[in-house]
Amino acid sequence: MTEPLFIIPLWADLLGVALGGIQGAMFASGFQGERRLDWLGVAIIGIMIGMGGGLIRDLLIGQPPATLQSDWYLITAVGAALFGMLLAGVFNRINILIVVLDAVVIGMFGAFGVSKAVAFGIPPIPAVFIGACAAVGGGVLRDVLMGLPVAIMHVGSLYAVAAGVGCTAIMIMHAFGVGITLAAVIGIVLTAIIRVLAVVYDLSLPEQRRLYRRKVATETGMIPIIKP
Amino acid sequence: MTEPLFIIPLWADLLGVALGGIQGAMFASGFQGERRLDWLGVAIIGIMIGMGGGLIRDLLIGQPPATLQSDWYLITAVGAALFGMLLAGVFNRINILIVVLDAVVIGMFGAFGVSKAVAFGIPPIPAVFIGACAAVGGGVLRDVLMGLPVAIMHVGSLYAVAAGVGCTAIMIMHAFGVGITLAAVIGIVLTAIIRVLAVVYDLSLPEQRRLYRRKVATETGMIPIIKP
Amino acid sequence: MTEPLFIIPLWADLLGVALGGIQGAMFASGFQGERRLDWLGVAIIGIMIGMGGGLIRDLLIGQPPATLQSDWYLITAVGAALFGMLLAGVFNRINILIVVLDAVVIGMFGAFGVSKAVAFGIPPIPAVFIGACAAVGGGVLRDVLMGLPVAIMHVGSLYAVAAGVGCTAIMIMHAFGVGITLAAVIGIVLTAIIRVLAVVYDLSLPEQRRLYRRKVATETGMIPIIKP
Repeated sequence: MTEPLFIIPLWADLLGVALGGIQGAMFASGFQGERRLDWLGVAIIGIMIGMGGGLIRDLLIGQPPATLQSDWYLITAVGAALFGMLLAGVFNRINILIVVLDAVVIGMFGAFGVSKAVAFGIPPIPAVFIGACAAVGGGVLRDVLMGLPVAIMHVGSLYAVAAGVGCTAIMIMHAFGVGITLAAVIGIVLTAIIRVLAVVYDLSLPEQRRLYRRKVATETGMIPIIKP
Repeated sequence: MTEPLFIIPLWADLLGVALGGIQGAMFASGFQGERRLDWLGVAIIGIMIGMGGGLIRDLLIGQPPATLQSDWYLITAVGAALFGMLLAGVFNRINILIVVLDAVVIGMFGAFGVSKAVAFGIPPIPAVFIGACAAVGGGVLRDVLMGLPVAIMHVGSLYAVAAGVGCTAIMIMHAFGVGITLAAVIGIVLTAIIRVLAVVYDLSLPEQRRLYRRKVATETGMIPIIKP
Repeated sequence: MTEPLFIIPLWADLLGVALGGIQGAMFASGFQGERRLDWLGVAIIGIMIGMGGGLIRDLLIGQPPATLQSDWYLITAVGAALFGMLLAGVFNRINILIVVLDAVVIGMFGAFGVSKAVAFGIPPIPAVFIGACAAVGGGVLRDVLMGLPVAIMHVGSLYAVAAGVGCTAIMIMHAFGVGITLAAVIGIVLTAIIRVLAVVYDLSLPEQRRLYRRKVATETGMIPIIKP
């Protein structure tokens, strides 16, 4: 460990968990009819989105999962998920809010991931990789456990790209001596902007466009994040 | 670590692995026709059910997997799986036996999970969470690797609820000074009773009932655990 | 730790990652039409095949993932994947080359897995198990994330058998005092030969043959590894 240990402030970590939990609940509320989830399913998805990224981050760094060292993470994730479920009827009408929330959550998990990896002496490239995995890991866990096609592989590469760009920016700023807090904030904003722009302008890497269209068209019961 | 280190006795741990291996083999034997598994597939499922929960528990606690620190776990899991496969023809006619066995296995993995988590200084709420993950983790691993819908998300929330209640009971008894062995036994019995009652009386959380019915009806080749 | 620490030479580790990355890219290039992957998807698969086995190995041993302790692993995996993608048109015509490459990669990951496990004091049987998991782990990760049926469970038991035999041979030679380097080379060759022979002669465990045929026939867009 050549770097001073960077401790992510508990409030920031819990904020990420809470936003993730709300986002997970809003995602879960999009399932209607036969696939509708009960409150426990919503809570599980909230936990996965809120805490999954941090869990994967810590496994990759080789540290005990920080989200299980305190009672607050689970309380926050479950509380946020139930709160998100109750308000889903409202939030679902404000589609752009879900998109922005998702984008900010990705940015936060990515920033926390790369920062913690650097603090534990991981070299720059794997640190960015760990940040990207932390950013998208909760969504991957959710998709695998829900039996959904893993979004990251088929329609969501820009998801990973957004996180990767934000984490790379943090790494570069860190190398040039920018304080980790400022760098993290800039990285989060950068990731969120890329992700929101990608959704708004329907951007995707060349091969993905058709796939995405097809998904929106055929998977009824899913929330189409963008208007077709 | 503020607690004295609780060592799960090897015989108890191996008993859980053996029962899990038998249960996994009986599950695997339910696949007929094109999805029929060979003996190696049965052994792999036995390993996943017998050892998967403990593996997930140790990853979440941040300890090296205990099931890989001794030759006995793999020998037991594989031996139990092959034993279960040979006797599946007999056991499958005694449907309630499979259900009870499954319920006891969940209870044991949950109890071992919460006990070990507490012993390593994990706070109460994440300790219960780790117990519940250990209880259902083997089944989740199995479903993901088999390409089955993950039972826990769609028909099995009461699975997780049963484990969660048992683990919570252990945690509360522990807080009130009850010895961990007695608390664990009570927790196992509690989990098993809830699970068996849920199966016998076809209980589920409100939203799940229809899903479950549908699963039993459409997935031919699966063992319907309850009579429809 | 009763054994002297065996350090896998970086060049050997990176060679395995590079071959895995190339193999992953060639696998990915087999997806055509709607499931076609963009370059980022190919890179992700390259990372999973090249580094997934080592990651699973280290999680099972209880060590921080070695592949994330140096910048070179990710550079190698991604570089190899993009190289493999560019040359896929050529390589795909040389089908046996893909099979041999895959077989050697399995052998290497298995040998590294069992060697490292032994070096960290894991007993023989779990050490062989860790080797086999390392050998097939990258492919399992790939299948789960791609939403493909996990090959190991349905058509690929001989995959795991080949790795298991190679790892067992290494373990036995090690017990009889054969140097780990020589033992590893023999184990890799043994695994690769079994795997290649299995493909060439269409070997499978009794129950699997029909399944495999069916897979080749129905999953258009996949590379049929063997001629039907």
